[in-house]
Amino acid sequence: MNARRAAGAPAGELATIEWRAGRVRILDQRALPGHVRFLDCASVEELIDAIRSLAVRGAPALGAAGAYGVALAAHTLRTRRQVRAAAGRLAAARPTAVNLGAGVVFALEAYEAGDAASALAAAEQLARDDVARNRALGAHGAALLPFHARVLTHCNTGALACVGYGTALGVIRAAAESGREPHVWVDETRPLLQGARLTMFELDRLGIDATLIADSAAASLMGRGEVDLVIVGADRIALNGDVANKVGTYALAVLARHHGIPFYVAAPTSTIDAATPDGAAIRIEERDPDEVRTIAGHRIAPAGAAVRNPAFDVTPARLVSAIVTEVGVAHRPYARSLPSHLRRARSFG
Amino acid sequence: MNARRAAGAPAGELATIEWRAGRVRILDQRALPGHVRFLDCASVEELIDAIRSLAVRGAPALGAAGAYGVALAAHTLRTRRQVRAAAGRLAAARPTAVNLGAGVVFALEAYEAGDAASALAAAEQLARDDVARNRALGAHGAALLPFHARVLTHCNTGALACVGYGTALGVIRAAAESGREPHVWVDETRPLLQGARLTMFELDRLGIDATLIADSAAASLMGRGEVDLVIVGADRIALNGDVANKVGTYALAVLARHHGIPFYVAAPTSTIDAATPDGAAIRIEERDPDEVRTIAGHRIAPAGAAVRNPAFDVTPARLVSAIVTEVGVAHRPYARSLPSHLRRARSFG
Repeated sequence: MNARRAAGAPAGELATIEWRAGRVRILDQRALPGHVRFLDCASVEELIDAIRSLAVRGAPALGAAGAYGVALAAHTLRTRRQVRAAAGRLAAARPTAVNLGAGVVFALEAYEAGDAASALAAAEQLARDDVARNRALGAHGAALLPFHARVLTHCNTGALACVGYGTALGVIRAAAESGREPHVWVDETRPLLQGARLTMFELDRLGIDATLIADSAAASLMGRGEVDLVIVGADRIALNGDVANKVGTYALAVLARHHGIPFYVAAPTSTIDAATPDGAAIRIEERDPDEVRTIAGHRIAPAGAAVRNPAFDVTPARLVSAIVTEVGVAHRPYARSLPSHLRRARSFG
Repeated sequence: MNARRAAGAPAGELATIEWRAGRVRILDQRALPGHVRFLDCASVEELIDAIRSLAVRGAPALGAAGAYGVALAAHTLRTRRQVRAAAGRLAAARPTAVNLGAGVVFALEAYEAGDAASALAAAEQLARDDVARNRALGAHGAALLPFHARVLTHCNTGALACVGYGTALGVIRAAAESGREPHVWVDETRPLLQGARLTMFELDRLGIDATLIADSAAASLMGRGEVDLVIVGADRIALNGDVANKVGTYALAVLARHHGIPFYVAAPTSTIDAATPDGAAIRIEERDPDEVRTIAGHRIAPAGAAVRNPAFDVTPARLVSAIVTEVGVAHRPYARSLPSHLRRARSFG
């Protein structure tokens, strides 16, 4: 472990993303849980490929990827014009997550006011802040979990989705660390199975009791009274509290409401997009049909099958019981509470 | 094509199950859509394996499997006691589908009153009736679909789930045949992907416009106003109208209600179980955890991951807009309309 490692993941945890010897090193999440393998991106183009192919994913991790990517551009490209152009390509690599663009802007501003070292320092600061904010978020959110709560979650919002610790999974982790002994129902999260591959992997390493289900089994667990609450992350939160997150989230919110179960969102304030008034303004990324037509390279549908593959959906604010950030727990009306969280976050840390 | 074929699938359609040269021939659905391959079961034990491993599946097809299985027992075993014991094992091969046991009883009664030939004649009659009932069901149900309806369905309820034609997919097929030009959203239906593998395969062969989605994308399509109605099959319908069907069905029913979309169930009256007063009395089959931990032999979760894998769920009658049978369209209160359908079905054909 080198000195840079201290910027990100807590000791003993796999580093999702870090700066190492002039490259951006990424834990290749496409290979998990079977293989722990790293990608050393030596150019912005390699990093963009890694982002597009989901070698690195998760809103907060993408923020760090954006910032480290600018540092990489600044270290490898000759002119400021080239660095700015690379930053623009990087920010556009995935359209829904607000953190990616924000991370790019954060490091680019430092670069414009300084040099390549300034960009890297900004990226390292963002990485450190990510972990600190997630720990604070986890502590606030843990109080929402009753003892022995049976918690349902979707996709992966753990350390692997961040620089470290996790958001929604960070809340569950904080609850476990404080002795609340949660049990976690993990949606496998088709098409890319981040729940099965990544969340089950993380919960196993953390020693937290977890059971994997097909996404479509969540409703019947709720119907049988086996789910006490739902907690998910977010890729972008509009100022009115509408939440863009992994496809399948909206279904869980409707189901939770039908069954009288709280539905919580956990995300750092960096996920709140002050430029997005409501969910209707959020562009939903449509991904490759082969993500649905194949699994791990194995074809599961007729070759020419038409596919609709939205990566995200939008959950309206009225279905969200509360939003947990590093500042605390935001309640309705979100149009009031979220701007307050944003203001208080600026003075965080 | 031999003479026996006429008992089952319409000409030009793959035969899901048929009697051929003293064996029960099954289209092995585990290999679809990649390979069209048949299993010739020469013993009841081979047939039970085929049923348990879902080489043959779908409530109406299981009815035929039960009846043909008794004919197979009667043709291959020496004593009536052995045939009765084999029939008992066959009926217990899968616990949720009512049709399997009913098919066994139907052929066994013919056998008890006659001989092996009587059992086979009963099975052939059941197979012929299946197709005739599905065609009638389709015609009744097609009237529920507006022109150019965007119909969402789950799992496979086509000819492959039956001896021929299909139930919920038969309704869609009848609508297409009458020029209504439906568009079908097909849930892939994890864990065993019957929607992706089988329904997409059938709709492609039928030339009906279809788009495959991950199960968790259904809600956002509904939220965007892109679904006009939901139609699914059933594995068992209680006398009060509660419906056991493939896991994920209950979620669709809740989501349809939330979005003000009709939720229809299509099943022959043989699926209505007069011995089951309501859904609470239905035993839900829990299947092998590896169905969730792996896909097509490829591991997608940590090896020891705990899994909950219910094959079915129960949708309460209050969420079901109507139930289509070969007799017509049953409305609420189902406790009145379903017994009436059962009475009228007895004189069907």
